[in-house]
Amino acid sequence: MITVLCGGVGAARLLRVLRHADAATQLNAVVNVGDDLVLHGLTICPDLDTILYTLAGLNNDAAGWGLRDESFRVMDSLETLGGETWFRLGDRDLATHLYRTHRLAAGATKTMVSAELTSSLGVDVALLPVTDDPVSTVFQTAIGPLTFQEYFVRHRHAVAVQRIEVIGAALARPTDAAIGALERARRIVIAPSNPLISIDPLLRVAGVRDVIRRRRDDVVAISPIVNGTALKGPADRLLAELGYDVSCVGVADVYGDLVGTWIIDDADEQHANALRQRGHAVLVTSTVMGTPADDARLAAAVLS
Amino acid sequence: MITVLCGGVGAARLLRVLRHADAATQLNAVVNVGDDLVLHGLTICPDLDTILYTLAGLNNDAAGWGLRDESFRVMDSLETLGGETWFRLGDRDLATHLYRTHRLAAGATKTMVSAELTSSLGVDVALLPVTDDPVSTVFQTAIGPLTFQEYFVRHRHAVAVQRIEVIGAALARPTDAAIGALERARRIVIAPSNPLISIDPLLRVAGVRDVIRRRRDDVVAISPIVNGTALKGPADRLLAELGYDVSCVGVADVYGDLVGTWIIDDADEQHANALRQRGHAVLVTSTVMGTPADDARLAAAVLS
Repeated sequence: MITVLCGGVGAARLLRVLRHADAATQLNAVVNVGDDLVLHGLTICPDLDTILYTLAGLNNDAAGWGLRDESFRVMDSLETLGGETWFRLGDRDLATHLYRTHRLAAGATKTMVSAELTSSLGVDVALLPVTDDPVSTVFQTAIGPLTFQEYFVRHRHAVAVQRIEVIGAALARPTDAAIGALERARRIVIAPSNPLISIDPLLRVAGVRDVIRRRRDDVVAISPIVNGTALKGPADRLLAELGYDVSCVGVADVYGDLVGTWIIDDADEQHANALRQRGHAVLVTSTVMGTPADDARLAAAVLS
Repeated sequence: MITVLCGGVGAARLLRVLRHADAATQLNAVVNVGDDLVLHGLTICPDLDTILYTLAGLNNDAAGWGLRDESFRVMDSLETLGGETWFRLGDRDLATHLYRTHRLAAGATKTMVSAELTSSLGVDVALLPVTDDPVSTVFQTAIGPLTFQEYFVRHRHAVAVQRIEVIGAALARPTDAAIGALERARRIVIAPSNPLISIDPLLRVAGVRDVIRRRRDDVVAISPIVNGTALKGPADRLLAELGYDVSCVGVADVYGDLVGTWIIDDADEQHANALRQRGHAVLVTSTVMGTPADDARLAAAVLS
């Protein structure tokens, strides 16, 4: 059993690579819910859905978000009505939000809904929200506080961030399923997701960091910064804005003593010593997923 | 200024006929909200939307409900996820529900949302929910209590009804806009909507019946039962089940002393005396809308 700490896209791709390389190992995804939002009355869980769609083979790999064969009939009509459409929800995607909102109103938890959705779509990775309680990542920026989607989608992460807060994290309880998956896994993997806005909000949920720290020797982490840039999204910019080195070393500083082994890219070999000096074991391989050979090397490093 | 008491389809068609016959008169629609529901977290107002779509020229006249050029991408995907799809919401229709739910969450009333939607779609009839408070029509049936949509859509109104209740009606306050439209109109028209499940729930909102009774001489009503059958829906069946005559006379008995003048169809002329004996004036004309000539006759009768 392997448990992966997950944001969205980077984690989804890693899980797909791991599942492809090894069909037998039980995979658990403990997933950030700090980006979750209620829009038009619908509860939307972007990271959970990105992973769900990717593992179900429904995602739009080219666009990097959303579903294949997606249409926007609802949004087009909403635009005609003068509604808010900056967060463009596709028709197929909307079905997921209707399903979840309906089930939550009937008393189900996000954990239960995730289990139902993975079952319906034939996904054999356990999708575990880190908490079923409300948490909300907020960005203190040069233009005032922004919710996650306001920062990420509406402003396309092009405003300077001064501080990131996770409202509710201190009072949120991690789910038994998430804690169990962290305690019982033979290995905990920190996915190459954004360390500051995906993984750290997850770690701030009360108790999660402690469980992982106790498992330090079994924790491997993969840097989303390769050769000084983020593979996707604003991780590089945010690291710089918040005073971290824009490299795998900066990411290691975010996670501190939680990580036993860093898996870094061949392109970052020059950082291996800095990581060892911080007390980490280091494994150098390919961490950029995309080709079968690179995927296989990364999977071998994570699973070995 | 003319104010029409409205359910869904029958009222929408009457309003369209009146607007077509007379572009100058201000038309107000005071609309039933007893069928309103929250589904998948979305607030849906079937009667308001039927009127909105019909007056905007967007409705599917052939089907009798929903929008033209409608698609069901969201529902098809929701079906794949194992969600509840017995109430099939089209993609274009969903946009209206997203818009309304978003605005209600932001503190708007149904009245405000209706004004925004009519403005966006270029509809020049004032669409006035009878109340902004929650009311809910419930059917006590042979198989237990059913909500409006369970009765109407899920069971296709094919179960015997013993009693109709409107939960919340006694505590609901009619809106100032609705009361104003009833007090100031030169004529109040009761549309040929279902008397028991569309008009009566509206009349049960505290205070509405009293305002209309004071205007009795200016109240005209059009029967939805012509020649012993309902033009659409279960009005005939329900009248029989609840002990009323299945005719315009039975409908007149539902409304009692609220109505000054009954407008009945040529096919129902034999009932004119029974209506006069009950103290109503009677006007015989065509009440079945559809041809330009019939529409013009009906409009003339209502507007004269």
